[in-house]
Amino acid sequence: MHTKPRARRGRDVLVVGGGVVGLVTAWRCAQRGLSVAVADPEPGRGAAHVAAGMLAAVTELQYGEQTLLGLNLASARRYPSFTEELEDASGLPTGYRACGTLAVALDADDRAELRELHAFQSALGLESVWLTGRECRRLEPMLAPGVRGGLRVEGDHQVDPRRLAAALLRACERAGVDFLRQPAGRLSVVADRAAGVVLADGSAVPAGQVVLAAGCRSGLLEGVPEEALPPVRPVKGQVLRLRVPAPFAPFLSRTVRAVVRGGHVYLVPRENGELVVGATTEETGHDTAVTAGGVYELLRDAHELVPGITELPLTEALAGLRPGSPDNAPLLGRTALPGLLAATGHHRNGILLTPVTGDLMAEIVTGGDPEQALPFSPARFSRAPGTRPEAPGTRPEEPHTLTEGVPSR
Amino acid sequence: MHTKPRARRGRDVLVVGGGVVGLVTAWRCAQRGLSVAVADPEPGRGAAHVAAGMLAAVTELQYGEQTLLGLNLASARRYPSFTEELEDASGLPTGYRACGTLAVALDADDRAELRELHAFQSALGLESVWLTGRECRRLEPMLAPGVRGGLRVEGDHQVDPRRLAAALLRACERAGVDFLRQPAGRLSVVADRAAGVVLADGSAVPAGQVVLAAGCRSGLLEGVPEEALPPVRPVKGQVLRLRVPAPFAPFLSRTVRAVVRGGHVYLVPRENGELVVGATTEETGHDTAVTAGGVYELLRDAHELVPGITELPLTEALAGLRPGSPDNAPLLGRTALPGLLAATGHHRNGILLTPVTGDLMAEIVTGGDPEQALPFSPARFSRAPGTRPEAPGTRPEEPHTLTEGVPSR
Repeated sequence: MHTKPRARRGRDVLVVGGGVVGLVTAWRCAQRGLSVAVADPEPGRGAAHVAAGMLAAVTELQYGEQTLLGLNLASARRYPSFTEELEDASGLPTGYRACGTLAVALDADDRAELRELHAFQSALGLESVWLTGRECRRLEPMLAPGVRGGLRVEGDHQVDPRRLAAALLRACERAGVDFLRQPAGRLSVVADRAAGVVLADGSAVPAGQVVLAAGCRSGLLEGVPEEALPPVRPVKGQVLRLRVPAPFAPFLSRTVRAVVRGGHVYLVPRENGELVVGATTEETGHDTAVTAGGVYELLRDAHELVPGITELPLTEALAGLRPGSPDNAPLLGRTALPGLLAATGHHRNGILLTPVTGDLMAEIVTGGDPEQALPFSPARFSRAPGTRPEAPGTRPEEPHTLTEGVPSR
Repeated sequence: MHTKPRARRGRDVLVVGGGVVGLVTAWRCAQRGLSVAVADPEPGRGAAHVAAGMLAAVTELQYGEQTLLGLNLASARRYPSFTEELEDASGLPTGYRACGTLAVALDADDRAELRELHAFQSALGLESVWLTGRECRRLEPMLAPGVRGGLRVEGDHQVDPRRLAAALLRACERAGVDFLRQPAGRLSVVADRAAGVVLADGSAVPAGQVVLAAGCRSGLLEGVPEEALPPVRPVKGQVLRLRVPAPFAPFLSRTVRAVVRGGHVYLVPRENGELVVGATTEETGHDTAVTAGGVYELLRDAHELVPGITELPLTEALAGLRPGSPDNAPLLGRTALPGLLAATGHHRNGILLTPVTGDLMAEIVTGGDPEQALPFSPARFSRAPGTRPEAPGTRPEEPHTLTEGVPSR
């Protein structure tokens, strides 16, 4: 590839990837006075275009992931002020909705699992309330008559990821972020230090620091030394969008979710009448095909949970790729290559972790070393070949069989 | 609406509606030397854009519909020469595929029904062969292990309705048919005779004869006297399109169908790797929303029949409106208003009946009175208000409980 040299200095920061994580990093860096560019052929798309936008720190609690829980809760707490600031900065809505979540059980096994989750939440001081089936149906009359009980989590809200991405894009533009609308082709390394990227068209973009924020493709950038490559992989999720016609509104008033046949299903009702149904979890590589089986499974499980969905128009079926990491926690911070940072591996929590990711990354880019980010350093995966370091929150404190929540690999 | 008068004489024939029935009528009339125009904002679309294209005269046999059976069989027999002529005339493929059909039973009740259908087919001299479940699976290895038996109908083939429509459109253009790309707004009646239409933009299109071929909207044209309005209604059908990736090909070699929980499900494999899954039957007015329930039902039933579909990409979900008539048979010929003809009400058989419809309508338009069309005269619905005449094929010759096939109203 031919490289057109440009001014040696270039931008302060080049962000590879214009999904929500790349955009929030760019925005926060620009707010600190840095010159920032984002390389992405289609900024504002990425996995957020498919994501449902649940902010489910408490509902998706995983045993053994308490460190991640801390970050998730911190980000959830920032959401109200974050979206307020973002809406002011962009002039666009984000669809943030403090609606709470109801996780229900459809049979005795589900019920036992939810009870365990409830006990675990209580032990950690998290707020959740056990409800009988009847109480669940009183809250959400569309629920199946067979619901056996559930957990009401008043603090788990939602945002509209497409609006969030559009608002971040606008805020970035207003803050002076430069958008290079093509893929990054290769990392430039000069004197053992990241020095920018070469774009797909061969033009060089020098930069003081490069942030890898390309979601599940963050490990694919050419020119990155192996020890600095983020170990992320695509975890496919298929998601449906239904529409609630006026006569059926509101249909649901809060996010409703359940585990059905071992798979998660959730229904996220937007204020604009959209109802998002998600999501499959598939390890099929870089494949975004919507399949008959994926759609069938989602409709079957959602129908079991809320039979009345059959009446609703189905407006979209899409698949996205979550950036999975070996321990389900994100990679935030400096990599083994000086000048190269990572903000990726957010797995199921990319939307939830957007506010805290922007804050931490801007602090690290400007030389800080925030304690909150330490457990999520990319370094945890790159000490020595063959010896994987202990990952945050993967040491169980006692035997436990809770399997609900984020699926393990 | 303002009417711009034009030359008194105008075209010989104006066809209202550019679906396959309107197009084949226009083409056949133009071939006879008539000057023909078709009014349709989007010719070549219509219900054919959604239809699966089964040519299932024998498989969809209904007890009590023997008159319609005769027309269906006549049209099925014309298909090979019809598509050959059309492909020559248009230079385009039609996707006609002489692949046969396998109708299978998934439980003992289905099996008993299929057995009855088989007996009825045999009594009428129709060719179908009873197969055991094992024989069915030998023909189609993707079939569910639980298949209890089936009927092999070697004469029920398929065509690709989208290609058929595109070829008809091209053949019409080549034969000099004029396309007026807007909706017909109102029928012009002069001296108690149809004299053309006024288009949506107010321009008048005079014509010697007007053919109503607007599918389920054929009864909605303003200006048509009540006694001449075709009593058609929309019967919604939702249809999915899957794709068979190369490693799975051919997946299925012929049309496979079954009755599951009282609903029909069929899988029509195209040579280009498309697999069409249809269809719901819903009486919900002029509504073409794809619903969660419709897609769920199709996937559930198709999955029961051919479990391996879960692996296939889902590429389209669409709903179309069949033009249902009170007796499930088409309306072909002169209406109560001189100069106004109908070619509509084809219900589930529009694609199958396309060849014979074109031939009969051209003969009627040019003054003929083909015997084959007599039972399908629109006059059967318009004798006197309040007294519905006996419709073709609705008099059962003996009590019978066969309910498979075309659903009744």
